[in-house]
Amino acid sequence: MSRPAVHPVEAPPPTYGAVLPRVRMKNVQGTAGTAGSFVLRLFQFAFAAISVCVMGTTSDFVQVTAFRYLVSASIFQSLWSLSLALIDIYAILVKRSLRNTRLLRFLMIGDAITSTLTFASASASAGITVLIGNDLNKCAVNNCARFQTATAMAFLSWFAASPSFFLIFWSLASH
Amino acid sequence: MSRPAVHPVEAPPPTYGAVLPRVRMKNVQGTAGTAGSFVLRLFQFAFAAISVCVMGTTSDFVQVTAFRYLVSASIFQSLWSLSLALIDIYAILVKRSLRNTRLLRFLMIGDAITSTLTFASASASAGITVLIGNDLNKCAVNNCARFQTATAMAFLSWFAASPSFFLIFWSLASH
Repeated sequence: MSRPAVHPVEAPPPTYGAVLPRVRMKNVQGTAGTAGSFVLRLFQFAFAAISVCVMGTTSDFVQVTAFRYLVSASIFQSLWSLSLALIDIYAILVKRSLRNTRLLRFLMIGDAITSTLTFASASASAGITVLIGNDLNKCAVNNCARFQTATAMAFLSWFAASPSFFLIFWSLASH
Repeated sequence: MSRPAVHPVEAPPPTYGAVLPRVRMKNVQGTAGTAGSFVLRLFQFAFAAISVCVMGTTSDFVQVTAFRYLVSASIFQSLWSLSLALIDIYAILVKRSLRNTRLLRFLMIGDAITSTLTFASASASAGITVLIGNDLNKCAVNNCARFQTATAMAFLSWFAASPSFFLIFWSLASH
């Protein structure tokens, strides 16, 4: 809506010292650079971090590929969410809008990758947790409760990650 | 940008009986009612159906919750895709556009649910297939190849399902 014109136009005379009114695009609550986005990122980070910590306290998670995958995906998700939370905080503090199409496209692709990884790892872990707990009835010799908690936290992290993705996708599409 | 004005305007006189020119919206290739969409639906249906058939030929899939879930999700996906393929064929044959916002919203929600279920079940099956094959090395007593094939087919079905969802989402957002 407020793209710079690409047609060659005469440059306006520089107005050094003059106080120009700052045009700020309207930010949809939840897209990058808003308080809503910051809260979503914090939730994503917190749930992913809890998932990693809970899984890390079990000694035998390294034996199962899906659990190792859950830990890697959750670490990736938490790092991504933390860095975007910092970017959001910066944008809020300096009152800058992050509605740059290129940046938003990058964030959208990043969100799509991290949330897909998190969801896939959570599903795989859920499949194995159910296999151990219900199908094989071997919870006595395994840390079922911790596996379940870590899986649930990864699902919650994905739940918080998908609105971020869809809000950016929506704002790019309706641009 | 092209929002309807909310100021009260005089309603145009009703034109009963007059032959109004049929306005047909431009269809994006791939959204509901186009040949692209029909092809996508066929692929979704075929992959999901193959997944069900391959998993059904193994006798022990009923013992594992994740494999039962894969079969249910793939049946659901194949039924959904088949019915939408039929709707697409109908729309193509009678040359009707399916760009009705309500219908598209319904299709979008249906696509989101089916593709999420398919992806989750494929991930869970993949986790268990890897557990049996790599972590426990018990492929000799299990139908690893068939489990893997069924899982791969479910992933392919999800791969064909996501463009359908995103194209509808995009066309709704840019409406």
